[in-house]
This record gives sequence, C-alpha cells and structure tokens, in this order.
Amino acid sequence: MTPNDAYARAGVNIDAGNLATQLIKTAVQSTFGPAVLSDVGSFGGLYRLLAAQPMSDPVLVASTDGVGTKTKVAARLGRWHSIGHDIVNHCVNDILVQGARPLFFLDYVASAHIDPPQIAAIVGGIAAACRAANCALLGGETAEMPGVYHEGAVDLVGTIVGLVDRRAIMDGQRIQPGDAILGLPSSGLHTNGYTLARHALDELDWSQPAPGMAQPLGELLLTPHRSYLPHVQALQAAGIDIHGLAHITGGGLIDNPPRIFPPGLGARLWHGSWPVPPLFDLIQRLGNVRDAEMRRVFNMGLGMLVVLPAEAVEKAQATLSESYLVGEMTTDNNQQVTINK
Amino acid sequence: MTPNDAYARAGVNIDAGNLATQLIKTAVQSTFGPAVLSDVGSFGGLYRLLAAQPMSDPVLVASTDGVGTKTKVAARLGRWHSIGHDIVNHCVNDILVQGARPLFFLDYVASAHIDPPQIAAIVGGIAAACRAANCALLGGETAEMPGVYHEGAVDLVGTIVGLVDRRAIMDGQRIQPGDAILGLPSSGLHTNGYTLARHALDELDWSQPAPGMAQPLGELLLTPHRSYLPHVQALQAAGIDIHGLAHITGGGLIDNPPRIFPPGLGARLWHGSWPVPPLFDLIQRLGNVRDAEMRRVFNMGLGMLVVLPAEAVEKAQATLSESYLVGEMTTDNNQQVTINK
Repeated sequence: MTPNDAYARAGVNIDAGNLATQLIKTAVQSTFGPAVLSDVGSFGGLYRLLAAQPMSDPVLVASTDGVGTKTKVAARLGRWHSIGHDIVNHCVNDILVQGARPLFFLDYVASAHIDPPQIAAIVGGIAAACRAANCALLGGETAEMPGVYHEGAVDLVGTIVGLVDRRAIMDGQRIQPGDAILGLPSSGLHTNGYTLARHALDELDWSQPAPGMAQPLGELLLTPHRSYLPHVQALQAAGIDIHGLAHITGGGLIDNPPRIFPPGLGARLWHGSWPVPPLFDLIQRLGNVRDAEMRRVFNMGLGMLVVLPAEAVEKAQATLSESYLVGEMTTDNNQQVTINK
Repeated sequence: MTPNDAYARAGVNIDAGNLATQLIKTAVQSTFGPAVLSDVGSFGGLYRLLAAQPMSDPVLVASTDGVGTKTKVAARLGRWHSIGHDIVNHCVNDILVQGARPLFFLDYVASAHIDPPQIAAIVGGIAAACRAANCALLGGETAEMPGVYHEGAVDLVGTIVGLVDRRAIMDGQRIQPGDAILGLPSSGLHTNGYTLARHALDELDWSQPAPGMAQPLGELLLTPHRSYLPHVQALQAAGIDIHGLAHITGGGLIDNPPRIFPPGLGARLWHGSWPVPPLFDLIQRLGNVRDAEMRRVFNMGLGMLVVLPAEAVEKAQATLSESYLVGEMTTDNNQQVTINK
C-alpha cells in the first residue's frame, strides 16, 4: 500500500497487519499437533476431535476472557511477551475447574495501530503457553481500531475450548460439609484488579524494588498468571478425589468459590493460614482499600482453591510442595465465604 | 458497592457488571438447546457434543473476529442491537465456507465504562442471531477498561465453534478451471472498511438519506452483516455440488477468494455483472479512493462467492432468487482475482 492510499490516510495499515501475520506464523505452527488440519490464514481453524482422546460422552468446555488493564502495565514497561502467557493460563484454569483439558485456543489482539513486533511478542507468549498446556493455537485476529483504543493501549482477549468426558465433569456437587480447602499460591495479581492496583501504585518508580520486596515493582506486576494444570494433573495422578476447584479471578476470594458450592454449603477460610504476598499489602495501604474490597477484587495470594476430603489432605500436600490448608466447607454460611480473623 | 470504594474511585464498577449480567441472562438462556449443560455464570460453558450430530470423524471449526469500527457507527447513532447480529453472522459465515454448522458462540464486549442497557442491547442482538443460526450462546465476558478504550467507544469480539464431518470439509480443492462463480449480495459494508467509510462520510448528516438513496445514511451503515447459512443450506438441499465458498471480509474481493483456490487457478470476475450499491460509489467519491483499493477493502456488493460447476448455475439461480453469475475460474491468473472492465 502506498502512503497516499485512502485507508492509510484514515489510519489503517493493511500491510502492517500482513507483516504481523508473517511474524507470528512460525510461533503459531509450533503449537499444532496432528489434530490440527488447517494452516495459518484459513477462514476458520480445523481441529480433528477424536484424534486426541476418544471418549464415550464428550463435552466441550469453552471460555472467553481478557487480561484486563494488565496490558497497561505491559505498555508502561514496554514488555509484551508475558501477557500472552497470562491470557492462555487464565483460560486454561477456567476450564480446568470443570475437569476439562485444553484442545485449542484463539486470540484477539487490538489496538489503535498495529505494531508488528509488539504483536509478534504477544503471540509468541501465547504460543509458548499453548505448547506448555498441549493446546493448539488454532486461530486469531489482529484488529486496528483508531478512535476506539487509546494510542499505545492494547486489549488482549482469548477463547479456549477443551474437552471432558461427561462423567468426569467437575461441578462441585460432590462437595461435603467438613471437606478441606487447599489453597494453591498465585504468582501475583494474575489478571485481576489491575485498574485498582495501577491507580494505587501509579506514583512509585516501577523500575525499583518496592519497600520490603526484592524484585522491581514492574516485574512483580507483570508476573504471568500461573497455570494450575500441572498441579491438578499431579493430584489426579496421585489418586486424590478432588471434589471441586475454584479459580480465583475477578470477584476474588469472596465471589468465586460459591460458583461451585452445592445448596446449603459455604466456606470458612482461616485468616493467616496462607502468606499474603507483600504486594497486596502495598496496594491496600497506598490505595486505601478496605479489607472487604481487597478480598472481592484480588486473589490475596491464592490462585486456585481445591476442595477435597479432609482425609486426603496429607497426601495432597505431599504431592504438591506448595500448598496451604486454608479452610473447610461448612453448613453455617450458605453460598458464602467467610474469612475468620 | 458504595461510591467511596477504592475500585469505584479507580474507575471500575463491579455492580454495573453484575447488573449487565442479570439483564442478559434471559436472552442468553433463550439460545440454549439440550446440548448445553451449564448455566450463565459458570467458569466455562459446557456443550455436549454428540447430542447434536453424531458423525464418523468430527472436526471442530473455530474462528474469532471483531466487528471493527462499526461499533463507532453504533455509538454515533446510539443503536447497539444490530452489531450483535453483525458479529454472529460474520463468524457463522467464516466457518460456513469450510462446510461447518455452528455449535456455539462466545462474546466479548469491552469499553471504558460498563453501561448495562448498552450491554443488554448488544447481547440481545447476539442472542437473536444465535437463535436464527441454531447456535448456543455458551459464554461471554464484559470488560471495563478505563485508559484502554476511549470514552463511549466499544469493542465487540466473537468466537464461534462449529462442526463438520471430515469428508464434508470444504477447502476448494475440487475447484476446476471453467467452474462458475455465483455472487450472493451483501446487505451493505457488512463489518469491513468502516474506518475508511466513516472517514469519507464523516461530514454528511447521517440522519438524512444520501443523494440517490432511500434510507438514511446511518441506517445503511448500520445494516447487519448477512448470514449465508440459509442460502448454502438451500443450495445443498437442492443437490448443488458446491466446489468452494469465499466469505468476502477484510481484504475485499481481491484478497479473500484466493484463500480457497487450488494451485494454478485464479478467478476472473466480470465488471458490471452485479449491481454495486450506491453506498460504495459514495464512499469512493467522497473518500477519493482508487478502484484497486475499493476492491481490497470492501465487498463491493457481494458478501459470499459460490464456486460451482458451470452446468449447475441454472439450478442454483432457480434456488436462490437473489444471486448473480459474476465470473469463472481460469488457469490464466494463478492465485489471483482479476476484475475485467
């Protein structure tokens, strides 16, 4: 396209989009297993279903999500690779809690103007996280939308499709009063609460360690969302009978767990039974945020809760070196989570 | 949430998000058939695969896309329902060209601030289009991202997953020299070229009909993307042996058709063999756009090209009252489309 073309004058550069596609092609193809029948650039991606796992009553599990304003952290630091890991791992966890294993992923990256190296970094991160989850990066879209996005701002959205045999669907309905709750540590904020966190921390120097922390603040904020696929696979391989899994995302420790509680049951978490990383305290102090709101917005150091029979706790903790016994299921507080001081 | 909460001060309103979810719940549930095992609000949506269509070698076909800056037209007119139809129909067509029928759809709507009635209108349109395509609206996400989106601007992204038996995959490999090309009329710009179109038409009064047109310009610009699922189903029911389908999206009449051409083949389209709606002429004139660029950006009145044996044209045109014989496949221009004056 020559510079005097009308679309270029209106702010859209088709050739930048094509260059971005060329840059990501190898990364995308590196995620393809034998189930993928299409190549980069076809109208839709083709995934041969039973090539992977024959099952008697296959159920597809799908979820769409974004990384929120964590993209603003990436923009402030000029580092784009890790948010690719964020979006994949977030989605992997969202279907993991229903018992599903990933089949394929599709991404959407949008900004005011396409920056091919930026797209290549983001999609490179997506492809690496997809490979780690044995998940094909089956398709995606890059959009250039001047007038919708602020200059320099990016949105990153992902959709995952996974598979579970119907009898293996995990929906929490086998959760019993007295079941134990194990917490698996998060790596940081994961992908939630960034608008509040950025607001609270805006005036600090992100290239420096914050008081009492070893890593520079920017690095802490950009740490990718952890995938709990290996942890859950390890528990299952050890024969642990998982009764329920809750991914701690937007809504924090308060709003997420009840999504899997059977009628009449609630959870009691024990304050102090797991370490809250100092980053959360810093946000709370500088942002002047009440305890109740912190717990409704942030994961507070726990990215996944595992509900399991109390007698399985010892074996589960021997299997997962990093886990905390953080609470129990009760009949006291129907569909609610309370955190006791 | 009370107004002095920290997240509200940072610009995010969790309760507006929850209200939006309540408003759309009935619309979303109206798309559920017996294959959907989950309810609104679960971590991932559950779709029971073989409930729908048992087949010997099932292949999933998936595509993610956005409606681009057509959302800016919706914003200028304050009408949000129809872009919901746009995103669904665009995605339906993208997998239709590979022979797939929709199973389910997931949406993503993002803006600087969540406006529950706006979300309800968009998702209402999505749900209506999903019902028309016999497609479950299995999941979705609403994101509030101040600092990423301009105030009042919206992005709308969709992901569709469909199913095709492996032997019924349409990939254009059966296309022969001499095959005929039927064009199916578009309803307008569909979802492509809006940044250029808005730039060209910005100073006109969109509430008035443009010269030589009956409808107000804003209505013409907002006309939803047409789904060609009924057209293709009608051709197949009439026993037409479709050799290939090309959805005319970004890249226009020039860049899309070659995506299905076998090696050595190209297409010749006959200028004047189909009516180019006056809206395209208006954009070209006011935007000062060259012919070559118009054809690389816009659908020019044809939303879908159907490649079929020349001897099937008569029956196909008798089946579809609205279709044009617009060209033929040749060995002259490998992997290209030429439009003869």
